[in-house]
Amino acid sequence: MADYVYGPGRNHLFVPGPVNIPDQVIRAMSRQNEDYRSPAVPALTKTLLEDVKQIFKTTTGTPFLFPTTDRVFSLLWIDQQQRLNFNVDVVESDWGYGADLAALDYKLRQDPSHSIKAICIVHNETATGVTNDLSAVRKILDKHRHPALLLVDGVSSICALDFRMDEWGVDVALTGSQKALSLPTGLGIVCASPKALEASKTAKSVRVFFDWKDYLKFYKMGTYWPYTPSIQLLYGLRTALDLIFEEGLENVIKRHNRLGTATRLAVEAWGLKNCTQKEEWFSDTVTAVVVPPYIDSAEIVKHAWKRYNLSLGLGLNKVAGKVFRIGHLGHLNELQLMGALSGVEMVLKDIGYPVKLGSGVAAAAAYLSNSTPLIPSRI
Amino acid sequence: MADYVYGPGRNHLFVPGPVNIPDQVIRAMSRQNEDYRSPAVPALTKTLLEDVKQIFKTTTGTPFLFPTTDRVFSLLWIDQQQRLNFNVDVVESDWGYGADLAALDYKLRQDPSHSIKAICIVHNETATGVTNDLSAVRKILDKHRHPALLLVDGVSSICALDFRMDEWGVDVALTGSQKALSLPTGLGIVCASPKALEASKTAKSVRVFFDWKDYLKFYKMGTYWPYTPSIQLLYGLRTALDLIFEEGLENVIKRHNRLGTATRLAVEAWGLKNCTQKEEWFSDTVTAVVVPPYIDSAEIVKHAWKRYNLSLGLGLNKVAGKVFRIGHLGHLNELQLMGALSGVEMVLKDIGYPVKLGSGVAAAAAYLSNSTPLIPSRI
Amino acid sequence: MADYVYGPGRNHLFVPGPVNIPDQVIRAMSRQNEDYRSPAVPALTKTLLEDVKQIFKTTTGTPFLFPTTDRVFSLLWIDQQQRLNFNVDVVESDWGYGADLAALDYKLRQDPSHSIKAICIVHNETATGVTNDLSAVRKILDKHRHPALLLVDGVSSICALDFRMDEWGVDVALTGSQKALSLPTGLGIVCASPKALEASKTAKSVRVFFDWKDYLKFYKMGTYWPYTPSIQLLYGLRTALDLIFEEGLENVIKRHNRLGTATRLAVEAWGLKNCTQKEEWFSDTVTAVVVPPYIDSAEIVKHAWKRYNLSLGLGLNKVAGKVFRIGHLGHLNELQLMGALSGVEMVLKDIGYPVKLGSGVAAAAAYLSNSTPLIPSRI
Amino acid sequence: MADYVYGPGRNHLFVPGPVNIPDQVIRAMSRQNEDYRSPAVPALTKTLLEDVKQIFKTTTGTPFLFPTTDRVFSLLWIDQQQRLNFNVDVVESDWGYGADLAALDYKLRQDPSHSIKAICIVHNETATGVTNDLSAVRKILDKHRHPALLLVDGVSSICALDFRMDEWGVDVALTGSQKALSLPTGLGIVCASPKALEASKTAKSVRVFFDWKDYLKFYKMGTYWPYTPSIQLLYGLRTALDLIFEEGLENVIKRHNRLGTATRLAVEAWGLKNCTQKEEWFSDTVTAVVVPPYIDSAEIVKHAWKRYNLSLGLGLNKVAGKVFRIGHLGHLNELQLMGALSGVEMVLKDIGYPVKLGSGVAAAAAYLSNSTPLIPSRI
Repeated sequence: MADYVYGPGRNHLFVPGPVNIPDQVIRAMSRQNEDYRSPAVPALTKTLLEDVKQIFKTTTGTPFLFPTTDRVFSLLWIDQQQRLNFNVDVVESDWGYGADLAALDYKLRQDPSHSIKAICIVHNETATGVTNDLSAVRKILDKHRHPALLLVDGVSSICALDFRMDEWGVDVALTGSQKALSLPTGLGIVCASPKALEASKTAKSVRVFFDWKDYLKFYKMGTYWPYTPSIQLLYGLRTALDLIFEEGLENVIKRHNRLGTATRLAVEAWGLKNCTQKEEWFSDTVTAVVVPPYIDSAEIVKHAWKRYNLSLGLGLNKVAGKVFRIGHLGHLNELQLMGALSGVEMVLKDIGYPVKLGSGVAAAAAYLSNSTPLIPSRI
Repeated sequence: MADYVYGPGRNHLFVPGPVNIPDQVIRAMSRQNEDYRSPAVPALTKTLLEDVKQIFKTTTGTPFLFPTTDRVFSLLWIDQQQRLNFNVDVVESDWGYGADLAALDYKLRQDPSHSIKAICIVHNETATGVTNDLSAVRKILDKHRHPALLLVDGVSSICALDFRMDEWGVDVALTGSQKALSLPTGLGIVCASPKALEASKTAKSVRVFFDWKDYLKFYKMGTYWPYTPSIQLLYGLRTALDLIFEEGLENVIKRHNRLGTATRLAVEAWGLKNCTQKEEWFSDTVTAVVVPPYIDSAEIVKHAWKRYNLSLGLGLNKVAGKVFRIGHLGHLNELQLMGALSGVEMVLKDIGYPVKLGSGVAAAAAYLSNSTPLIPSRI
Repeated sequence: MADYVYGPGRNHLFVPGPVNIPDQVIRAMSRQNEDYRSPAVPALTKTLLEDVKQIFKTTTGTPFLFPTTDRVFSLLWIDQQQRLNFNVDVVESDWGYGADLAALDYKLRQDPSHSIKAICIVHNETATGVTNDLSAVRKILDKHRHPALLLVDGVSSICALDFRMDEWGVDVALTGSQKALSLPTGLGIVCASPKALEASKTAKSVRVFFDWKDYLKFYKMGTYWPYTPSIQLLYGLRTALDLIFEEGLENVIKRHNRLGTATRLAVEAWGLKNCTQKEEWFSDTVTAVVVPPYIDSAEIVKHAWKRYNLSLGLGLNKVAGKVFRIGHLGHLNELQLMGALSGVEMVLKDIGYPVKLGSGVAAAAAYLSNSTPLIPSRI
Repeated sequence: MADYVYGPGRNHLFVPGPVNIPDQVIRAMSRQNEDYRSPAVPALTKTLLEDVKQIFKTTTGTPFLFPTTDRVFSLLWIDQQQRLNFNVDVVESDWGYGADLAALDYKLRQDPSHSIKAICIVHNETATGVTNDLSAVRKILDKHRHPALLLVDGVSSICALDFRMDEWGVDVALTGSQKALSLPTGLGIVCASPKALEASKTAKSVRVFFDWKDYLKFYKMGTYWPYTPSIQLLYGLRTALDLIFEEGLENVIKRHNRLGTATRLAVEAWGLKNCTQKEEWFSDTVTAVVVPPYIDSAEIVKHAWKRYNLSLGLGLNKVAGKVFRIGHLGHLNELQLMGALSGVEMVLKDIGYPVKLGSGVAAAAAYLSNSTPLIPSRI
């Protein structure tokens, strides 16, 4: 199979998804099709559904594995909203700002009749690198004793940032295989609270692509699959979960915090600005870096790929040309990041930004050499 | 990675999908994620969209690669129908019978005002092994000079049976990666005629998961993907097409005819009946075998898997317990089929059916040894 | 990567080595290089050296893993012989005959001074399919209370036939990765008894490629490797052993007996002769089939590959053109064999031998359907 | 398959072999065994033998692919020497020094009768990072019109450093698959000049493991293999050569020069000494770094692996504890090296050496950002 744009050595993949797949997962997925109606696939699926709950930190939720890509997520919201018969009141924040919690507080206070049925929020905004404080959202809901469902897009957070479905009373949370789980694209993983499942029963139902009822029927029968799953992705997910549990989910989260912190220190040392406007919203999975007006950030992305085999994220929509993004999520370690940060430095220099070579890397190294623990299996 | 139900040697996969993947394809898919926004993925996609038209035998159609599974297909119909604002008039046939062409002829004759907007038909019915004659459908439409769109579910036919999109005036055709293309589950491949594309523009549009317009917009931009594709499946599809072209599509179709014929000869030699009621509907991709009333066909499937590592297809719905299915599509050769037919013989004996061991295999072998050509690359 | 002689479907590999590799092993080997001086490789090696003893049925032997191919084995004999300062007295048997135990008995009786230092014997002769009775050899040695070392070439027997190093007092036994272990070529596995190790110390030593002393020095240091091992083969061996232990070594041996018996029944039903002259020497890993004088067995092998993608073994040396060989060792199950036997029937017919199609397959099926157990993990 | 010492993210493999394998090669090797006596394997082998000559820069040489590991190389010398009936006169240099060309000049001058039959020299000394000037060796031989054979150990040079078999009149050259070819361990690749082949015919012959005559006999027959090759390594070599030719051998050599230069600049910036004593001997494939007396270099290697998943080379023999080695050969690019250099900096700091973080990385980056070309396929 030809590689269309071969370059020597590894590709350095630092877009905020799809991310680097562990070799163990690539191996596990390198396999034949199987008859998914044989007892083997349900036996495997059962372990997945049980174990996947851990990455949501839930014991009461019900997980679903959907064959899909990222496109489905925003549609899922619409779908949920239609099925639950909601009017949608979109509260937008400026790019680089977190969710407007004051507005939420105000709206809930104005809703003693509980006409608001659900709050939809993104945990980590991938385009700008903004992490919202979900525990604060929960506190506001609780303060008002408001029964609205809490629906969370955890696509670029779950398995990388601290996410607590049960503790924070999240009713629906979802993520995708190609983000922090470090798998190929193809699986959407959704977890629903008992309250959400109950609500879906009574809601006006249109038959949709992702119908929980289809799944629940097959869950009861113990065959699990209303239609043909990707056998390869199931085995991949099994291995991805095994690796996360081997490292320890808390250690995974700490590792992402280290990588995020190191990246931000490098950006600061380069004299550049983080697109995220306040420290409380800093994202440990993606950093959007604002470039000076005389530089087109798309040129940085293009040049990184052409010269150093480094894949960075483009700025999207409103910030196209103004920011580039460094994804630092998934199966990644400190020296991989250091290689990428070195690469960004060289690109900045090449493109005409007056960076001091070694400055960002030194800042990141100083932090990492103080905070990186020994690898537990090697002590 | 544990295999949950390990048995020595290969699994013999003879369900009518998912099917055996060529090792070349497994290899091609054993790879890292890539940034799909880099130039490499569009360059690859471009070749896929060009070449995939050949398996539909179309030069004028526009192909789409959807991340999905088989479930989507029936929904696609509904979707199409809703978008095109149709009333659905379902003409069911008995199990084992082909589409009722006389009824079609009658209905079209009764429709001089062309209120019928589309004819939806399955090319090959996977549950019973019935192949419909699409050229006859086209002739009926032409006879009445009826402008209805012709929509074809080619899931278990395209790449295995003779299918001619342009010649037969098919407007929408679709197949799935896990069938005759011999890939893992995950891609739905749809091809639309210019007439279908045109119709979709004027039809009342609800925003749906598979929206051609999304794709066409990105086709124009040359980036091709409105959302994250599975890089692995794209490379897999590239290799699957390469293998089909290396063998030659016509040779692939002939091979399926050989395997189907051999299977039917074996069934006959065993004294069992084909679920398909007339020879003209015999399917070269799947054979549904009717068992005597005193045998539960599900036991045959279970026993084959437990003792011989042979995966056969269950009878579904109306024929559950009454038929078992032998899938003979995809990347498969004569001796693989002979192994499976031997296995079925042994299972039949084990389960109490008075089969003469060797009878079916002998019938199949007599046919195959006369019809199997030398492998061209080895002559 | 081009396949030079692509044919659709699987290759049916029935040469007596190299044999079919389990997908699990291919997966395990699909990996990066590692620094073999890190603690990971010794940790893995330690488990291999411990577990590999089980396939020799020894608790007292010392195993060695040599990077090599099959060529080394006959040379190893010569090497051993030179180092131990032997004169070599070769007792040849006719092709198709087992070792001449009467001659052995006679020679040992004539050697009261124990000038004979070692008996070298092949357990299973791959060219003709002859299995020697090693327990009888041991009995003869014991009868004469003769201290000669017993050296066994177990290349096409160990892991497939019953082999008992400790019980039969074998002093050196060896096998290769590409035979019943079902790995790629590349590892020679040798096991030495304490007596053999002791003898090697005092023997006149020439420095040779495979010097136990090199290894033993590194064994003591706990680093195990005097030079760079193939990381991939080590992980492959780990998985190969895991699969053998999961099936159970005794079950592996029984499976080979089933496959060997079924093959011989088919040969008989075809009216052809086994090259092996007495039933007591029948081999459960390879069957050499004698063809009538008017047929060139090389044509059978060529035709099988060209038309049916079936790889059979050529007749070698004295029996070139007169026999073809069916290898039935390694990771293989009943229906794989049935496919191959069907193929041989078709080839025989194609080539002009008056075979009754289905005859051999029926004989094999009758036996296998009575003797094949349920797969334990699936009961 | 368990990983014994799992750590998150990639292992950074910077030992001087075995080196990083390209994913393309891992994929190509992830395959079944094949019958090496079928026409496919010779067809593949033929292309390998033809193309492998390019990496030796020879048109007249005859290449051999031996199944082996690195151990064999020094033995090969001994073997050659025995077969060619030589007395060995070893001219040792101090560690860190190149071959003593003055001594060579002197000895040849003292040998008007041409009793010296061969000069054996290592092109690149892996333990200390010393590259010898082979063209100077050739000039000395030519100056004296001395007919001695020139035998070169190119294990850590060929495919990475400039090596010219024909131009420099090298008679035997060898390398190993696990070095700059970036394959797993398992193949020794030897190339012999017509003069060397001729000499081997007349030399007193002991039958040895690697006997050219065995090979040449099979070369003539067109089957190429006197014994079972590793099918997987052959396909791996095919892909490795394809990648080298796609990049261009001269570009590969330039890339190694860039990586070597950048490494040396970093070492200098850290205030450390290169073990290589003169610039003319600097090696572009491995840099041995001398540590201050108060540091044990083995601790650096251990710590790098335990904390940063970075594999560095130990100092061996005379320089054990005194140097650590950075291997920078094989399938490797600039940012991978930058990650490793960052890692070394952090390790140096952790271990108590007063390094200025960012200093080495900055020096390397300054050089690389001026010298790294655009990737040709991406321009």
